[in-house]
Amino acid sequence: MKQIVIVGGGFAGINAAKELGKNKDVSVTLIDRRNYHLFQPLLYQVAAAALSPAEIAAPIRSMLAPFSNVRVMHAEVTAVNTSDKTVTTSIGDFSYDYLIMACGAQHAYFGNDTWENYAPGLKTIEQATEIRRRILTAFEKAELAADRQDVKKHLTFIVVGGGPTGVELAGAIGEMSRYTLAKDFHTIDPKLTRIILIEAGSSILNSFDEALASRATRDLEKLGVQVWTSSHVSKIDDDGVEVDNERIQASTVLWAAGVYAAELGNTLDTEQDRRGRVIVEPDLSIKNHPNVFVAGDQANFSHQTGDPLPGVAPVALQQGRFIAQNIGRDLKNLPRKTFSYLDKGQMATIGRGRAIVETGKLKFGGFIAWLTWLVIHIYYLTGFRNRMAVMFNWAWSYLTFRRGARLIIDKSWRMYPEESQQEQNVS
Amino acid sequence: MKQIVIVGGGFAGINAAKELGKNKDVSVTLIDRRNYHLFQPLLYQVAAAALSPAEIAAPIRSMLAPFSNVRVMHAEVTAVNTSDKTVTTSIGDFSYDYLIMACGAQHAYFGNDTWENYAPGLKTIEQATEIRRRILTAFEKAELAADRQDVKKHLTFIVVGGGPTGVELAGAIGEMSRYTLAKDFHTIDPKLTRIILIEAGSSILNSFDEALASRATRDLEKLGVQVWTSSHVSKIDDDGVEVDNERIQASTVLWAAGVYAAELGNTLDTEQDRRGRVIVEPDLSIKNHPNVFVAGDQANFSHQTGDPLPGVAPVALQQGRFIAQNIGRDLKNLPRKTFSYLDKGQMATIGRGRAIVETGKLKFGGFIAWLTWLVIHIYYLTGFRNRMAVMFNWAWSYLTFRRGARLIIDKSWRMYPEESQQEQNVS
Repeated sequence: MKQIVIVGGGFAGINAAKELGKNKDVSVTLIDRRNYHLFQPLLYQVAAAALSPAEIAAPIRSMLAPFSNVRVMHAEVTAVNTSDKTVTTSIGDFSYDYLIMACGAQHAYFGNDTWENYAPGLKTIEQATEIRRRILTAFEKAELAADRQDVKKHLTFIVVGGGPTGVELAGAIGEMSRYTLAKDFHTIDPKLTRIILIEAGSSILNSFDEALASRATRDLEKLGVQVWTSSHVSKIDDDGVEVDNERIQASTVLWAAGVYAAELGNTLDTEQDRRGRVIVEPDLSIKNHPNVFVAGDQANFSHQTGDPLPGVAPVALQQGRFIAQNIGRDLKNLPRKTFSYLDKGQMATIGRGRAIVETGKLKFGGFIAWLTWLVIHIYYLTGFRNRMAVMFNWAWSYLTFRRGARLIIDKSWRMYPEESQQEQNVS
Repeated sequence: MKQIVIVGGGFAGINAAKELGKNKDVSVTLIDRRNYHLFQPLLYQVAAAALSPAEIAAPIRSMLAPFSNVRVMHAEVTAVNTSDKTVTTSIGDFSYDYLIMACGAQHAYFGNDTWENYAPGLKTIEQATEIRRRILTAFEKAELAADRQDVKKHLTFIVVGGGPTGVELAGAIGEMSRYTLAKDFHTIDPKLTRIILIEAGSSILNSFDEALASRATRDLEKLGVQVWTSSHVSKIDDDGVEVDNERIQASTVLWAAGVYAAELGNTLDTEQDRRGRVIVEPDLSIKNHPNVFVAGDQANFSHQTGDPLPGVAPVALQQGRFIAQNIGRDLKNLPRKTFSYLDKGQMATIGRGRAIVETGKLKFGGFIAWLTWLVIHIYYLTGFRNRMAVMFNWAWSYLTFRRGARLIIDKSWRMYPEESQQEQNVS
């Protein structure tokens, strides 16, 4: 029986596993260092205190429990050896006949690694709860500050990067300050809250139609978000940011400006692009190794349009399933197919009742776009319970303007005194 | 206007603040180092992956937002100076005319402080998610272990302490292993899972009627929990525990065996009992300082029965409200009243459909007891949204045997490499 190893339980990995789970001629091992699959498109909702982590995450093990030929390993993969056909992990080596790499991407700071301490990115649950902690703490500090300048600094939120994640984060902070938190504070004036969305390019949401991007900009401004395009961040420190040599004092700086593919791609010994993505063949395998595939955010597939496909969930999902099907064709001695992305469109949400949708020639914004966004995201959200819980939370927060998950949780578990001291030194 | 300072936003503090919020002759400052009020009776459900932290916690600020004379300070109180009538905090000093101390308690290890590293207690959200991480990780490790002895060690769970918290934790782990996780693992046999509840006294749940405690023991045994009474833990290390000189190998040891009142009580310079609780007068003030009150788990009130009142939510709630009313009487020059606890009874839950209830002469167990427990807990759970979300989660988990919050979240946020290394050294 052919051994298939899948590294990563994101959209690509899970969908490859589910497809291969139907094929009883193969034995599948999915390895992930996390025990859960994360519905990344809604991660910003955790950062914005609207959803709890468990509402957008499901245990990989229970998602794949119906497939008796799929085993799930909770371990960290450290290297791939394509000549031996093995992957090395924290719990030993695994041999494969076919390997599917689907390790995703992480935030990148373009050589300014120290910025990470001051401006967290949004890729993991830990980062999301940390961002939530920082946002809520900033309001608490503002309430306590005596000096007007300090209040202003605590109530200034900088979001770097005007893609969908940056737009969604900035919009969500705007809503929190204007509606959710407004009544909870007796001292500070929520109108002082400044949210600045900084984009280096000439427009936010540059993959969208220009008119739609303008609409999103107007919607953001209604929520108190200033959109600064063609603006370059030259420095980030504990006092704020420097934008085109102007200093802006801010307690909270968030990073949504760029990603780098998982470093495990380096061990494949094949060509990568400047963002670390592995260049793949038309069938998503890598050069000289037809039994090794790369999918999702970790892959650079440029055969369709000349440009790499975007790092979004539908691409990963289709690629994972496609690879599984091609392996099935291999085993039946049928020729492989060439991957082709079926682009159903794109969307971004700005806030309650505000979104933009672009599908084929159809382009629209406003409430109907937001409903479309909502229905599609709930539909794709994994697992019945999560769908219901999220729907419930959204209905509640829509009707009441309140957010349920406003907890400031400590960055680390403060049981060990030595750990806690260490942490205070770095934070 | 009289300045009233409340330290702590638990059941006592919140209820004192709400009561004082109605009295427009006072200005109230509630100080807590957390931004949320925690519904502690359901904390074990977070540890058992059934509820998310946000479902049992609500922002103190929004709970008290309706009261314009109550301000909330997110800060840590470090000392009380009764002669100056000030409290010292991380953000400066606060003067008071009346002080209400309601700082609660934390787990205590009776002089064996190193046990804390191996056997976490269950008092905070961080501890609950850490216990959740340990339980889920133990099953993951068991699935990967090659050696039968290792599998057994990973599938052995020790709960130290047979009070309500220990019983609830042990029962919840029993349910997880028997129902929730059973179908998710392909390699391990859930029947190997051993849960041992260790109690030094002659019976678990010793505050309950003997027949009810026996019923709870039988119910626990049906869930695979072995109940060891009259057993003494003499050692806890990374390999397991020693009970009356017998070694039991276990990956997961949890502590529910004793509490010590918040250390801030020491700065009051008044009599404390051996568990750190402040001895209070019949009106809940402290000796020689009639304007300083102590309530809840931090107080030792023995005037009613000769024994200190138990550290449960209803006592704290009634005491907080009572102190607020007595302050009101002071301001109207009326004589103070003497506190009297209205004991409505006690209950403990063992698992799905199993609980025991004791109220006055009425004593019953089983499904009706569990429904009673459920209705009362949902009723008291703070905030409309939480009540609904918890009800929904319970209905879902009752019908499907699944648990929604099965996430293994890292102990600390691994953004800083130095922090992460430090952590690996200690864990």
